[in-house]
Amino acid sequence: MKETAIEMNKILKEKSDIFYFMLSDFGKNIYMPKGIIVQSAEAKEKATKYNATIGIAESKKMPIFLNSLNKYFNILKPDQIFPYAPASGVQELRKKWKNKILLENSLIKSQDMISMPVVTNGLTHGIMLFADLFLGENDEIIIPDKLWENYNLMFEERYKARVVNYPLFNKKSTGFNVDGLDQAIANSKKDKIVLLFNFPNNPTGYSPTLKEVDEITAVIKKRADDGKKILVACDDAYYGLFYEDDLIDGSIFSRMTGLHKNVAALKIDGFSKEDYAWGLRIGFITFSDFYKNADAYAVLEKKTTACIRTSISNCSLLSQSIFLDIMGGGEVYVKEKIEKFEILKKRANKVKEIVYKDKYKDLWEVYPFNSGYFMCIKPKGTTAEKVRASALEKYGVGTIALGEDLRIAFSSVEYEELDDLFEIIAGVIRELK
Amino acid sequence: MKETAIEMNKILKEKSDIFYFMLSDFGKNIYMPKGIIVQSAEAKEKATKYNATIGIAESKKMPIFLNSLNKYFNILKPDQIFPYAPASGVQELRKKWKNKILLENSLIKSQDMISMPVVTNGLTHGIMLFADLFLGENDEIIIPDKLWENYNLMFEERYKARVVNYPLFNKKSTGFNVDGLDQAIANSKKDKIVLLFNFPNNPTGYSPTLKEVDEITAVIKKRADDGKKILVACDDAYYGLFYEDDLIDGSIFSRMTGLHKNVAALKIDGFSKEDYAWGLRIGFITFSDFYKNADAYAVLEKKTTACIRTSISNCSLLSQSIFLDIMGGGEVYVKEKIEKFEILKKRANKVKEIVYKDKYKDLWEVYPFNSGYFMCIKPKGTTAEKVRASALEKYGVGTIALGEDLRIAFSSVEYEELDDLFEIIAGVIRELK
Repeated sequence: MKETAIEMNKILKEKSDIFYFMLSDFGKNIYMPKGIIVQSAEAKEKATKYNATIGIAESKKMPIFLNSLNKYFNILKPDQIFPYAPASGVQELRKKWKNKILLENSLIKSQDMISMPVVTNGLTHGIMLFADLFLGENDEIIIPDKLWENYNLMFEERYKARVVNYPLFNKKSTGFNVDGLDQAIANSKKDKIVLLFNFPNNPTGYSPTLKEVDEITAVIKKRADDGKKILVACDDAYYGLFYEDDLIDGSIFSRMTGLHKNVAALKIDGFSKEDYAWGLRIGFITFSDFYKNADAYAVLEKKTTACIRTSISNCSLLSQSIFLDIMGGGEVYVKEKIEKFEILKKRANKVKEIVYKDKYKDLWEVYPFNSGYFMCIKPKGTTAEKVRASALEKYGVGTIALGEDLRIAFSSVEYEELDDLFEIIAGVIRELK
Repeated sequence: MKETAIEMNKILKEKSDIFYFMLSDFGKNIYMPKGIIVQSAEAKEKATKYNATIGIAESKKMPIFLNSLNKYFNILKPDQIFPYAPASGVQELRKKWKNKILLENSLIKSQDMISMPVVTNGLTHGIMLFADLFLGENDEIIIPDKLWENYNLMFEERYKARVVNYPLFNKKSTGFNVDGLDQAIANSKKDKIVLLFNFPNNPTGYSPTLKEVDEITAVIKKRADDGKKILVACDDAYYGLFYEDDLIDGSIFSRMTGLHKNVAALKIDGFSKEDYAWGLRIGFITFSDFYKNADAYAVLEKKTTACIRTSISNCSLLSQSIFLDIMGGGEVYVKEKIEKFEILKKRANKVKEIVYKDKYKDLWEVYPFNSGYFMCIKPKGTTAEKVRASALEKYGVGTIALGEDLRIAFSSVEYEELDDLFEIIAGVIRELK
């Protein structure tokens, strides 16, 4: 292990033994070298005469750029578009995102309770960075059984960890399976418990109610009291798209801050889904624990930065500059987000009206949904894959088959088309039964 | 190992035993699941009525987007900006980049000689994907000793491989060290030889001459004849920035295509340095070998895509759309690139005039340079770090210290300032001696 890594680990162990305990082997080994990046940062500050450190090309203190490229942009200046962003992200954007987290999570009462968010190349990259730091081949990760398939590919193939599932919904399929979570932790033979929550959930569109979140928090606290060391990772990709009133206020992440010495937490979120900007690839990862120690958070941020450096070097400056600008933009931006939210909410409510109708009772079971982009049904008397294939081939209707469930993205179907969409799916199931 | 991975590996083994042999454990295990991505692709084609597969939000067959975001763009339409790009990249852009490789590498005479390039999130991500597929903890990677520091962090820490160096320059420091390369291969106890070439080189700005490339090719062929299995990875980040006439025509990659049954090759390149678009994060990775088999290339592309899916999901659609558009743009774009190239070439030639002057002979040794963004000197009678620190603190001049060498980025210093820059560095060395 390199000296710099040893130094970083020493600080982390002293200031947050829980985060230190959670580190994977790679998480322990990785460090930010005091090389080009550090020397360049120093030069940026002090090289007032000539800066010959820079890995880009400059002329007249501006990046050299092609007008052929610059012509695609308004508002932004070339130095907001073309140079490299810092590996950890544009500092001002990180600050703005931190403020947003505080605004939306009333339990996070002060800046020092959480780390500075580090910019990631979209949400998946945030999940990768989490796994880089905390998952290895002897680890388990506990996730509800309705999940994004890429979790398996990432955690099992890339990180050699074991994915342990528990049923997302309780036996009556009325809500979150708190007992299932509790049992999954109890059944683990590991002291190191890694939990992943993804609410609003992909694929089901479910978010826990306030009451359920209280229960989830109580379970985690109880198990931490029993001596389990627990890392809670929150994939908040669809954050904010809550369509009912009794749901979680803020992220589960906010419940973990200061909860227990044996509990550490991280939050993965970003613009992709919240701002309908999937192709711009900007997300964040943020840490929190019981100790709320600035030095420990700094180590985690640095290790995350080194993971970024060794995977993609840095994230798009162009995208970061746009989001930084828009976040300072005020009312129009906020108003527009509310408008788009209302479109999705209206669709979700319409789907609710449709799918529980008596005429469909023999055709499918509906999983609870109240948020996000999707909802799932379980076709009766046939398989989801058969329904998918037939709906597509015969009727030009695209859905996703996931095991026994059919995922329907109401995010991408018009309000006026929803009746017809489900009528077609119902017809297909009737044909197949 | 998952069934899909086994199927893919079987094809690769049959069609390109050399690429199969080179795969890391992760490279063997990784596969593209027949899940959401495949079902969505199918729906994109066939879901003519309603497409409820999509992981984005749509309205009126267009992505839902915020005008607050759209206002930053000209020319591009919202569906070129906001949706997800395919995990392997925008197909038309991949085709255009392939054509560019063919145009610039006369030895690659037909489309079928190389794979379709896969889009990466900048060059570093390309290097990561290469290491994903081909490097593990029992592997060595042989790289000249003047190298980008991030190689070490990536290959050693992330991939647990051993980095083996040989001196980049021959003993007289007049050019590439062909014997060093030959010896490094001969000295390896492994049958699996992984070579990495980075020309134009970071940090020295050196590219091999045509004669040296012939010799490099001959060495690799000879060692392949001896039974070594060799993967040649070309990091062509600074491709095209060649300032002298007798240099390599095209990439070393082009010499490897069809060279020998025991030789496989890959090329990592992209827009970042070539188009002065560092912050837009678009690169490519392309494969080639003796067999030039379409099925084998397809497996490599799919495995690469799965590596992308498990690291960042996909690369910026916005950036890909811009580059796709610009590559169809014709003369202005080409003319501008030549203009910028001339700026850098003029600076490089000026640096050549300066650094070999008699008055500096006692102060530094100059390493050969003829290309790229940088050049290196080795200060005499003091250390590079001392020179760096003193130049920065006393004179506001930023440089990078790399072991015993000082890297100077003429890419970021004006032509008119170059005399003064080196005069200051000379003064610092005199003070320190």
